[in-house]
This record gives sequence, C-alpha cells and structure tokens, in this order.
Amino acid sequence: MSTPWIDRFAQRTKVVKSSVIRELLKLTQRPEVISFAGGLPAPELFPIERFQEACHRVLAEKGGAALQYGTTEGYAPLREMIGHNMSRYGIVASVENVLITSGSQQALDLIGKLLVNPGDRLLVEAPTYLGALQAFDVYGAEYVSVPIDNDGLQTELLEGALRSGPKFMYVLPNFQNPGGVTLSEGRRHELVFLAEKYGIPIIEDDPYGQLRYEGEHLPPLVVIDRENLRHDDGYHLGNVIYLSTFSKTLAPGLRLGWIVAPTEVITKLVQLKQGADLHTSTFAQFVAYEVARDGFLDEHVRTIRRVYSQRRDAMLSALKEFFPPEVTWTHPAGGLFLWVNLPEGIECQTLFKVALGENVAFVPGDCFYASGDEGRRHMRLNFSCAQPEQIREGIRRLSVAVRGQMKQAELIAV
Amino acid sequence: MSTPWIDRFAQRTKVVKSSVIRELLKLTQRPEVISFAGGLPAPELFPIERFQEACHRVLAEKGGAALQYGTTEGYAPLREMIGHNMSRYGIVASVENVLITSGSQQALDLIGKLLVNPGDRLLVEAPTYLGALQAFDVYGAEYVSVPIDNDGLQTELLEGALRSGPKFMYVLPNFQNPGGVTLSEGRRHELVFLAEKYGIPIIEDDPYGQLRYEGEHLPPLVVIDRENLRHDDGYHLGNVIYLSTFSKTLAPGLRLGWIVAPTEVITKLVQLKQGADLHTSTFAQFVAYEVARDGFLDEHVRTIRRVYSQRRDAMLSALKEFFPPEVTWTHPAGGLFLWVNLPEGIECQTLFKVALGENVAFVPGDCFYASGDEGRRHMRLNFSCAQPEQIREGIRRLSVAVRGQMKQAELIAV
Repeated sequence: MSTPWIDRFAQRTKVVKSSVIRELLKLTQRPEVISFAGGLPAPELFPIERFQEACHRVLAEKGGAALQYGTTEGYAPLREMIGHNMSRYGIVASVENVLITSGSQQALDLIGKLLVNPGDRLLVEAPTYLGALQAFDVYGAEYVSVPIDNDGLQTELLEGALRSGPKFMYVLPNFQNPGGVTLSEGRRHELVFLAEKYGIPIIEDDPYGQLRYEGEHLPPLVVIDRENLRHDDGYHLGNVIYLSTFSKTLAPGLRLGWIVAPTEVITKLVQLKQGADLHTSTFAQFVAYEVARDGFLDEHVRTIRRVYSQRRDAMLSALKEFFPPEVTWTHPAGGLFLWVNLPEGIECQTLFKVALGENVAFVPGDCFYASGDEGRRHMRLNFSCAQPEQIREGIRRLSVAVRGQMKQAELIAV
Repeated sequence: MSTPWIDRFAQRTKVVKSSVIRELLKLTQRPEVISFAGGLPAPELFPIERFQEACHRVLAEKGGAALQYGTTEGYAPLREMIGHNMSRYGIVASVENVLITSGSQQALDLIGKLLVNPGDRLLVEAPTYLGALQAFDVYGAEYVSVPIDNDGLQTELLEGALRSGPKFMYVLPNFQNPGGVTLSEGRRHELVFLAEKYGIPIIEDDPYGQLRYEGEHLPPLVVIDRENLRHDDGYHLGNVIYLSTFSKTLAPGLRLGWIVAPTEVITKLVQLKQGADLHTSTFAQFVAYEVARDGFLDEHVRTIRRVYSQRRDAMLSALKEFFPPEVTWTHPAGGLFLWVNLPEGIECQTLFKVALGENVAFVPGDCFYASGDEGRRHMRLNFSCAQPEQIREGIRRLSVAVRGQMKQAELIAV
C-alpha cells in the first residue's frame, strides 16, 4: 500500500503550536471549567436589537447589492466610516487607503503572502500574537524576537536585531496580546525612527486600541511615521501598515477587519485578496455599516470599556487577594488580557494540567514565543468573557493550583 | 530618493491577467452597456424575505453564538445539511469531510497553499476558470493545459500531460466556466481511472452542478472515484477533492463555499484556514443555514433553474438569429456561461473595444488560458444576469460588432 498522496504532496503544514493549542482549548470546554484561556468578547454585550434593525434595513433597502458579489476593496461607505473614525486618533486615511479584510487574521495572511519568502526573517515581540506567527509560518518565515517589558517592546535592544536584516517588524503597541502591556510614547518615536533608519517597514496590529480603560490614548506608529514624513522633501511611501478590526468592538462573528496602507501597498494587497477570497462578505459589511453608523459604535464602545474595565479590576484584585507574593502580573491599561509571571521552578504546561483539575483554564505562556523554549513560567489570562464573581472564583482556583505547584517545587511552605 | 520598500520587498505580485480584467470590467459599468461580461447571479431572484426571517430568527434565538468566534471547520448544522444535500448526487460526506470556506475562491487558495510549491506543474483545462489560475499563481504554479471540446476535457490527450508529472488536475466537469460544456460520463470514468493510474489527485470544482436545465445529472468525479475504491482492499485515501458553493444557489454576498475531502486532507486544510482567516463568518453561516433549511433551498434552486434556462434559451436563439454562420458557440446544459468561437482573423480584444462602442460587453477569451497566447478568437458570454429582451438586444449589438470586424478582415461581404 503506497503512502497517501496527501503525505507525499502537502509540504506547507507542520505540527504547529496552534494545533497543540486547539487540542488544549478543547479541554477547557467543560461547563464546570472557568476559562481565562480564550480571547472572546462578552457575548452578552453584542447589540442584538441593533443588529436586528440593521439586517432588516439592509435587506429591505439594498438587499440586491448586499447579497451580490462586491468589490475586493470592500464596501465604500464602510471604508469611509473607518477612515472617519480613525481620524480622531490622527490616522489619515482616505477610502483608497483602506482595504476591508475577513478579520485581522486575513490581513496578517495577506501581508505574509505579499512580503514573506521562505527564510525571510521577521522581527517580532517576545511574547507575541500566536495567530500572526501562524499566518507568517506558512510562507516560510523565520524570526528574530525582541523582548517586551512593562513599556512594551524594548527598543533599546532593537538595533542589533535590525542589523540582522528583518523583512519587517510586527508589533502590537496597545494592550499587547498576550502581554497586556502598552508601548510607551518615547519608545514609539524610537521605533519609528529606527524603522526609518534601517528601511524596515512596521506592521502595527491594533485590535484593542479603542478599549482603553485608563490613561491617555498614545499616538499610533502610523501617525508618528506620517508626521516624520512631513519634514521630508518629495515622495515618500510611509513605513507603517496599520491593522484593526471590528471583532472586539462590534462582533467577531462578522469577520471584519481592515488594513490602512499607502495606495501602492493596497493595490498589491487587493490583487492578492482577489485570489484569496474575491472579497469579504458584502452582507456582513453592509450590516456592520448599518449597525455602526450614526454614532452607535462609539456609544457601544463606551459600554464595552465600562464592563471590561470592571472585569479587569476584578481580576487584578483577585490576583492580589489570592496569589502568593512570588507571582507578579502586568497591569493592562486596556484590551482583554493580562500576563502572569510565575516563579522559577514552575512550569506552565504542568500548571495548566493541574489547574484543569481545579476546573480553571488559561493559555500557557510558551505558546506565544517564536522560538519554542521561552515562556515556560508565564500564563495569559483573559478577563473579558466572565462575570466579576466568576473571575474571582477562577483566580481563587488558579491560586490553589499555583500554590500546589510552588509547594511541590519547594518554593513555599504549605 | 530611494525605491519605495514595497517595490523592493513585494515579490509575489506581478501584473496578472486578473488586474487587466478588472480594468477592462470597469469599462463595462456604464449604465447604457448591456454586459455579458460578469458572472453574477440575478439579484432579483435573491430570496430577500426569507433572508429577513432568517436574520430575525438567528439573532433572536442564537445571537450570542452567531456573532461570536466560531470553529475553523464551520457551523456543524450547516456542514451536516451540505452533506445531506450532496448525498442525493451520491456524494458521501459526513460532517468531518466538509470544511466551510469563505467562498469557493478560498477553497482554491487553501488548496494552492497546501499543495503548490514554486515550479509545480498543475494540469488545467484550456480554457479554465481564471480565478483558479489567480489563486494558484501566487504559490508559483506552472501549468500544463489540455484542451476541452463539447464533451469537456479531452481525456484522450491526458496521458502525455500526466507523464509530465503534474501535482494535481483542476477540472470543472459541469457547465464549465468559461466553456459552458459538460464532461461526458465516459470521460469522467477515464479521467478518474487515469488519476488513479498516475497517482495524481483531482480538484473537482462544481459551482454550477445544481443548475442543470436539460439532460440527466452525471456522476461527480468524487463519486466515481469512491466507487472504484470499493473494489480495493484495505486503506485508500480517495483521489478527489470536491468544491462547491452557495454563491450561485443562495447568494454570493455571503461568501460561503465548501470543500469535501478525506479527513486527512481536511485536517491540514483546517490548519491553513485557521492562519488565513480563523473561520468564515459565523453570522453568514447561521443565516445561510436558516434560509436553506426545511427544503427552501431546493425550491429556490428550481426557480433559478427555470429563470436561467429561459435566459440561456433567449441567448441561444438571439445568437442564431443575429450572428453570421461563420460564428459557432457551445450549447450549455446548465450554468451561467456560453462560449463563442469567432472565425480566424477576428481578434477578441479588438472586438471587445468595438463592442463597447456598441454598448455591449463580454470577457475576451484569451483571459481564460494558462498560457497567454490562446483564446484570441473566443468570447465568454454570461446569460444569468439580464432579462431575455435585454439579452436579445445585447446579442444584436454584439452581432453588429462581429460583422464589422469580419468585414474589416474581409471575411464577409457587407
């Protein structure tokens, strides 16, 4: 019997971390488990009634267009609205600079397709968003990682990494996934300056930027880059591709994200997107526009901020109440996640299994590193998808697991 | 001033035919133009009211799940329904064999991603679906083309091409785009036999299979392949990956297609899809399921068949009425397109410009060939998206352009 053709022929797949995580997340589906593992928005906040009205209006008034093929670039009124909404953060984007994607994940895939050839090195944060690694891996990416601290990517360590000639830098400046940290304003300027100096473009991934619970909004890299360009004479392309999404502000089930880039870049991405899925669901785009319009999205984002910030606070105080002093964690100013540093001697994969025994789940930190041997003393906790009292109980259970592991490692007395 | 980074860095894009066609199709958008160029379903047939009810019910009853992240494989009830619907054509597929994709186009992209490495040769029909070439081009595909005739792919010419070692064969057996022809039953058996003999998998693309206006349904390649397997002992993977879509039966704006394949293949495709867009819109999937259920889709497909078959007939009789005898065309038993063969000496790109002057449009035949120097004497005509009287007037205008060109080439007297 010969080898099935698929094993002879399929060369782009390997046992990637994501598959390991998929298996791992399945274990967290039992109803008695309090899960901090996913990255889900709170479904009880989805504006169902507004969606009802929007669907009704879209179908009644423009059903023919909403159900028909559309342009690859996306629904023009939606792109215009996105441009308008971003302008309050200083981002200058006309309709031609905005490409609608099937979620931010597709934006990452298209960027990989456009820019990554086998063996290309990409500069990523350590830790970084797992889905980005998965998108880039397929195209044969290799990585150079630069660590983050409480102020985000450690730009003082960047130059060495940049000299190794990465194809681009991939960074999440706001409430980073998984770190929960935010790149400081000084480092933002430093990062943009170095990108320009070394001629290395930046992919700025900003899914959570609007979900800030404290402090002032910091300028996006794409804005700083553009301000620098003003001092240039003549033509200059702009060094930053900016990504965002409706997944965390409206609903992930729509699969609607977007890319902001110079038109020269958009043109090439459009060509690739046409081959990838022709275009993103016109119906989803029409409905999202109808839901978001007339200020509804802004109002809704205020609700999300209020609820998530309470949940973040619930998690922070539960951690303080239950966890031993040897454990530390980040204080996210926004977003969905925080990051826990466990003492030396604790192994997050073992802890994961023990925690599951206590009916609580998280994502082990080692999943978020481009190189496989880091992050063993970390865990990512999501706080957006559980009620405050559940969060407190989940953290209590987790603390039992953590203390048990520490005791076993003889790090603390019982 | 240095070269913009995008021109130094982007290596996967070239001026592909699709871009040329995009530009060309823009010219057909003027309201006075009768366009046979697109491949659009008739929007007046979209079941708007049924969509209204479906959206209402989905949001009222399961809004939280419909707007949330979903599994990469797709919404299980939808996959089950697809499996059930396909069983009437003899296709055996359990939920695990069905992967929901963001339109058939994404299925092509995922297959390219899974199987195509730079320089790999793919066996395609001449002419073939342009979007498939576009999806595979990105991964560095090269092509070996085998011509079609009125009975589809000329299987008697296959063995030579198969000996050149293609990675897979890509075929559209039913009402082919652009040829409008259908692979005969004898050739289906021959094709499956040869695929098995040479160990070359088949990608069977079947977007139009349900839209048959005359004659008997012919067995899909995936069914013939499976029947052959029954005579085998022991484990055998199955040689055919089958693709279809809701774009032509429900609405293309949903972007919902599917892949049927052995679970070993589905597992790898799921991994790639996760990196590509996490999953297809849950909302679109829930709505499609709710629209299609309880026999509605079958009933609706009967309506589509009736209307499109009238339009096909209108086009066939107008061609007979207006076109000179030197011009021939295919007689599609279903689908959306027919294919016109012009006499030697007529050049379709020139004819396209002349026809636009007469306010009628088509897609020039040379767009549909993997090698660039074929198809200059052909045009693809779409008949699904215009009323019979418009079709007659459009064909009349087109005949003026054709006769003009023939006269100029001194092929006919005035």
